[in-house]
Amino acid sequence: MKPIYLDHAATTPLDPRVLEAMRPFFSETFANPSSFHTPGLRAKEAVAAARQSIAKHLNGREDEIIFTSGGTESDNLAVVGVVRALKTKGKHVVTSSIEHHAVLEPLLHLKKTGEIDLTILPVDKYGLVSVADLVVALRPDTVLVSIMYANNEIGTIEPIADIGRAILKWRKDNVTHFPYFHTDACQAAGVLDMDVEKLHVDLLTLNASKMYGPKGIGVLFVRRAVKIETLIRGGGQEKNIRSGTENVPGIVGLATALDLSQAEKDVENARLTRLRDRLIAGLLAIPKTRLNGHPTERLPNNVNISFIDIEGEAAVLYLDAEGIYTSTGSACASTSLDPSHVILATGLSYEAAHGSLRFTLGRSTTPEDVERVIAVMPGVVEKLRHMSPVNLDMKYFN
Amino acid sequence: MKPIYLDHAATTPLDPRVLEAMRPFFSETFANPSSFHTPGLRAKEAVAAARQSIAKHLNGREDEIIFTSGGTESDNLAVVGVVRALKTKGKHVVTSSIEHHAVLEPLLHLKKTGEIDLTILPVDKYGLVSVADLVVALRPDTVLVSIMYANNEIGTIEPIADIGRAILKWRKDNVTHFPYFHTDACQAAGVLDMDVEKLHVDLLTLNASKMYGPKGIGVLFVRRAVKIETLIRGGGQEKNIRSGTENVPGIVGLATALDLSQAEKDVENARLTRLRDRLIAGLLAIPKTRLNGHPTERLPNNVNISFIDIEGEAAVLYLDAEGIYTSTGSACASTSLDPSHVILATGLSYEAAHGSLRFTLGRSTTPEDVERVIAVMPGVVEKLRHMSPVNLDMKYFN
Repeated sequence: MKPIYLDHAATTPLDPRVLEAMRPFFSETFANPSSFHTPGLRAKEAVAAARQSIAKHLNGREDEIIFTSGGTESDNLAVVGVVRALKTKGKHVVTSSIEHHAVLEPLLHLKKTGEIDLTILPVDKYGLVSVADLVVALRPDTVLVSIMYANNEIGTIEPIADIGRAILKWRKDNVTHFPYFHTDACQAAGVLDMDVEKLHVDLLTLNASKMYGPKGIGVLFVRRAVKIETLIRGGGQEKNIRSGTENVPGIVGLATALDLSQAEKDVENARLTRLRDRLIAGLLAIPKTRLNGHPTERLPNNVNISFIDIEGEAAVLYLDAEGIYTSTGSACASTSLDPSHVILATGLSYEAAHGSLRFTLGRSTTPEDVERVIAVMPGVVEKLRHMSPVNLDMKYFN
Repeated sequence: MKPIYLDHAATTPLDPRVLEAMRPFFSETFANPSSFHTPGLRAKEAVAAARQSIAKHLNGREDEIIFTSGGTESDNLAVVGVVRALKTKGKHVVTSSIEHHAVLEPLLHLKKTGEIDLTILPVDKYGLVSVADLVVALRPDTVLVSIMYANNEIGTIEPIADIGRAILKWRKDNVTHFPYFHTDACQAAGVLDMDVEKLHVDLLTLNASKMYGPKGIGVLFVRRAVKIETLIRGGGQEKNIRSGTENVPGIVGLATALDLSQAEKDVENARLTRLRDRLIAGLLAIPKTRLNGHPTERLPNNVNISFIDIEGEAAVLYLDAEGIYTSTGSACASTSLDPSHVILATGLSYEAAHGSLRFTLGRSTTPEDVERVIAVMPGVVEKLRHMSPVNLDMKYFN
């Protein structure tokens, strides 16, 4: 039986075309881009070309693209870097309850050390942040708003452009440059429009390994006007915002991966949306199930379903035995058995959140794969419900 | 004419055998090691095997190996992480004047913010730190000593085991767990003994891209007893010391690169030492030259010569035109035209430091390459001296 990988939100395979683009930079054009000689210059040119290509996709400028080691570092750099760069006494930050840990954890740390005051906005039952709530939360000392572009667990796409516009208006009304607006676009990068002008964002996080690029490389877009303090100090690379020898193959890989996914996104999104909707319909046909996340404002590859009375982890293992690879939520938190903070934030009970499963489709996913999951899943659910010590009522979904 | 790359201290090409070991982890065993399913487990096993192999080379334990994005991040994590983890009021750190910027810059930042008191030890004319000086510098509130294993510019190998022993004795005499001892072993990794027990170090930085491994991956060895605060927060990977999806191909690549270089180091070191000594002798035959760094306690691949009355940058460019790729010092600082802080620290005058050139040999270097450099260099020096507005005396070397 062909294995069916449905965990593309955790990470994607490297596209062979991306590896091909990276290949010359392993052992041929391998020099340090900071070196003065011709091989160093060749490496530097490759980094510059990648930067230019990424800037173009973002509708930003080349000097606004900062290369980092991945999404987690970019998120940390954005939130810690902005807070520490500003020398005002009181500092207030606004975020949402469904952010990735890479945003929440550094913010909670800054709160703990007393460096910031933190407002965590709730979300509605679909996982949407309310623009009106956000505007109410803004204060004269708000220095940063960080709201993700699309959620990694439930796939909900946040109204980033609306939030950006509301922040712009607030700044204008209050005659201030603050707050800056950061969005974690890791899950959105290969799929949605990345135009920072249309989104009105000041900082944006990208991660190659979620869009068929290599692991260990990311980008933080930092608008020119933004003051940011470096996290990692040394040789002064990346405009002194991120020191360390440039990961040239990784940088070329990220640029190529973004290029390919942006070029193919219309066709691929349409294909994935059809598969996604078929999978959602097929799984919701199982009794006592609920779709997590927004019915339409969701990533084309995300299906997240709560199956009442089952343990998500057990379902992952049963499906694994069938060669179907899924997850309960964020891979980054999968070693913890606590239910997802994202699903709890949408108002689901602890018990029902425990029975949620995430299927994230990708380039390799076929209609046959989807049909196979739809065929296999009822049996898995039945077996697990039979074993379950509890027998919850649908009321837990409300 | 065959190009001659003599900038291996800046970065090394990826060994094809390392790329071969990494290959399955790009598009086949590509899953997120934190994922619960079989592909995730396979990736996790690969990371565990790499960790085990690296721990063995270091004579440490698996849970003491923390993967980072490279040498710069490891150095930052070590010095900032230790300082911030300790809750004592007064904190004193000791380092040397020839450390890499990745150690000096974060320490200078911590000094600027008032978080530490910093002692920067001088070095002798060979670039050696004195153990006696170090012991005199230790104070009851000294929390960290950071001294590099081998210098990246002048190749001097520091007496790390002696320093480690002196620190152990000081701790014992003063009945304290402090200071911790960190060493940046980036340049030493593929070449010298890495046994943390023999070296008596508590923290040790490794970087794959200086030993024919991939860029964008490093290690920080952190002894179990050491308290360290994370720099990058999120999903809690690497024992919550370094969050972010593990760079599986990079991790496998680093382990393989360390394996290969440790296995081959005796034969390769002997070969490189012969080439190095021949190159040194050949270059010192040019009038008004001086060897920077220690005559014997030096990396087998490092040659650093000051040519009085010439500009190092100009020599790099002239040699570049001959297909010979060298540098003036650290690649990381090469965009600055200031002379190297390392060479100045050895007591050379500003003017003479300006005329220093670094040739770092590697696996591809042949005896013919060395002879060619020896043949070409006198003409380059003569041309540049002819152009030079100044005509310095040998007194600048003293």
